[in-house]
Amino acid sequence: MKELTRSYAIVQDDADPLKHFKNHFYKPGEDLIYLDGNSLGMLPCATRERLQNVVDEEWGRGLIRSWNTGWYNRSDVVAAKIACLIGAKPHEVMVGDSTSVNLYKLAYAALFYQKERKVIVSDNLNFPSDLYIFQGLVRQWGADYQLRLASSVDAIGIDTNALAKVMSEDVALVSLSHVVFKSAFMYDMEQVTRLAQENGSMILWDLSHAVGAVPIDLNGAHADLAVGCTYKYLNGGPGAPAFLYVREDLQEKLETPIYGWFGQNNPFAFSLEYEPAPGIARFLAGTPPLLSLSALEPSLDILLEAGMNRIRKKSVEQSKYLIRLAEHFLFPLGYTLASPCSEEQRGSHISMRHPEAYRICQALIDPGVGGNVVIPDFREPDNIRLGIAPLYNSFADIFDTVWQMKSIVTEKKYLPYSSSRKGVT
Amino acid sequence: MKELTRSYAIVQDDADPLKHFKNHFYKPGEDLIYLDGNSLGMLPCATRERLQNVVDEEWGRGLIRSWNTGWYNRSDVVAAKIACLIGAKPHEVMVGDSTSVNLYKLAYAALFYQKERKVIVSDNLNFPSDLYIFQGLVRQWGADYQLRLASSVDAIGIDTNALAKVMSEDVALVSLSHVVFKSAFMYDMEQVTRLAQENGSMILWDLSHAVGAVPIDLNGAHADLAVGCTYKYLNGGPGAPAFLYVREDLQEKLETPIYGWFGQNNPFAFSLEYEPAPGIARFLAGTPPLLSLSALEPSLDILLEAGMNRIRKKSVEQSKYLIRLAEHFLFPLGYTLASPCSEEQRGSHISMRHPEAYRICQALIDPGVGGNVVIPDFREPDNIRLGIAPLYNSFADIFDTVWQMKSIVTEKKYLPYSSSRKGVT
Repeated sequence: MKELTRSYAIVQDDADPLKHFKNHFYKPGEDLIYLDGNSLGMLPCATRERLQNVVDEEWGRGLIRSWNTGWYNRSDVVAAKIACLIGAKPHEVMVGDSTSVNLYKLAYAALFYQKERKVIVSDNLNFPSDLYIFQGLVRQWGADYQLRLASSVDAIGIDTNALAKVMSEDVALVSLSHVVFKSAFMYDMEQVTRLAQENGSMILWDLSHAVGAVPIDLNGAHADLAVGCTYKYLNGGPGAPAFLYVREDLQEKLETPIYGWFGQNNPFAFSLEYEPAPGIARFLAGTPPLLSLSALEPSLDILLEAGMNRIRKKSVEQSKYLIRLAEHFLFPLGYTLASPCSEEQRGSHISMRHPEAYRICQALIDPGVGGNVVIPDFREPDNIRLGIAPLYNSFADIFDTVWQMKSIVTEKKYLPYSSSRKGVT
Repeated sequence: MKELTRSYAIVQDDADPLKHFKNHFYKPGEDLIYLDGNSLGMLPCATRERLQNVVDEEWGRGLIRSWNTGWYNRSDVVAAKIACLIGAKPHEVMVGDSTSVNLYKLAYAALFYQKERKVIVSDNLNFPSDLYIFQGLVRQWGADYQLRLASSVDAIGIDTNALAKVMSEDVALVSLSHVVFKSAFMYDMEQVTRLAQENGSMILWDLSHAVGAVPIDLNGAHADLAVGCTYKYLNGGPGAPAFLYVREDLQEKLETPIYGWFGQNNPFAFSLEYEPAPGIARFLAGTPPLLSLSALEPSLDILLEAGMNRIRKKSVEQSKYLIRLAEHFLFPLGYTLASPCSEEQRGSHISMRHPEAYRICQALIDPGVGGNVVIPDFREPDNIRLGIAPLYNSFADIFDTVWQMKSIVTEKKYLPYSSSRKGVT
């Protein structure tokens, strides 16, 4: 079949309406294929220029005066752009702190708001550190508090019925990853939001693996709360500040546990008594990291220009193409699909398992192996994640990756590598 | 007297052993005098190069691989350098999050550790947002919790007796700014630490206005806990990550409320159960902002090369010089000293009050006024803060600033400015 040839991939790339967006990103090396945008997005060229300007002009020359000429409202400007990507109003989003800290703030606020309810519900596919935040909270709030996890049967997805089973009238908060980190399973946001709210619980979505990867409509789903990371598909750079969302009508009802400098109504009145800022600003804590914050903005402009619907359309086409190739070239070699088969239930990365996954990843990354250097993402114990970032990944990238994964196994190129884990790929 | 002439300042500058350090900083403009290093430090030239390398080579080319080739331990490397500046062991300091978030973590931990004690003691000279954090905590912990403030009589300093008076056996935590933000009053760290500990309370120092400005010896004072900001005298850049210190023997006893991704023992095992990392790492939360974190390191190298004792020596000489000039030129014009007279009780900035302080600051900053552009820092209602950063401030800067402050009043150059506050200087 023609789609099993590289020339088919080239034809797809030629017809791709998003193909020129690749030029907006810094080229990491001639033969490098980067399929780890789900972990750390690539560097937009405009970000380099922006940072140089922030450092030289704003910090170096403007010094403290730059607070009045752009720094104070930079979080708002960036937040408004993220809001466009997640179906929220500009004043429902705040940028700053890490995902963990934001998750802590909102989960705490939800418990504080409904003190008669003492259970947090999540699932065992959630990112472990989300669960850590909840474990910390229930431990600190006391013995009558509990974290309850819905379980996946196949380690790929979770049926809404499994969630419904762990619901009860003492559930204060349901918190889930919209797209789960390992398998890319994607919840139906509207359906699960309704399930939680019909139970009188609040819902908190972690959008880390979803934002920039799939269209999101928090307002459409009437979601209560959300957090997310910006260094994956949003290409904000390593450790870029996270965001949080609180639906408009909840902002005055909820209270952040961290009464921060930037969440105060009028910080420069230097009042000794805290008074929360109106609206979403109260969820800010300390001074936002201006360099990292500024680095995030140019990439958001690229995403908004491309449009999430076009990005999603290409992501689905590329994912289906990858699976089609894997069926033919890889599954006969011991690879298995560890992501949902249906695109409606899948984000923008594809997980595959293989008994030699760790050594295969080592071989993919090693330039000495020959062929392309492919950067995927390894997850214990036997998981290879291939992140599809339609803004800079081509169909040829996908063909070449599958080809490389095939030849590493057929030619046993993984054998020089130790199977003991020494680091993280 | 000869010291009242500009030529005296020039002689001092010629003899200054630290004079060449000024060249390590990016020049913001020919006639600009920057006396706001206590609010935002200047840009080190090496930081520009470092950031370009982090962006192009580490992020752009290295991509996710850079975690294994430097990013994971970058917080440790930076923390160890900060440790040298505050008299701590390298493994007693952690860098990440904001000062507010770190203060929250440690104050929470102190309350959690001593549940039978329900009072936090601070003072009314502390930075307001420190008090906000404590107000949030006592509100959330319940009606039997309380924040108790020692009061300053003169709004400049606080007598240790005033602190002793608010101590009682239910005090869990005493938390103070080592150098207070407005007057630059500096506590005797050893004496106050002893006072708290003799009462069975823990002590938490906020070093934001002290670190890089005065020598600090946390270990020598046997201090329990500390936090601090890095964008003031540490020149880390706007919103640079903060740090926290936990004395070695307390690290395994205390628990952070935010069970974060980077505080987990082995994040990449992806265990669903949180297990705190050994030592100080457990106080980390999410992924640190790598760009902002990397930007901080070059400045620390400069500070370590100059040495805190030499920096302090020059700071004291410059402060005394500024006060001496002010006595002669400014106090007769309505300016008054709002900082302690004695250098033992003073950090590295000088506060002065004047009924027209706001408009004077506007005139100092405005290039249209003539003379030098001087950037000080205005604080409500009538406070002018002059930050002395010996690494880049000269004696001539101080002479010229006093001269400008004098002529603005004698020639009424402040009169075109509205006295209504429209922004923050």
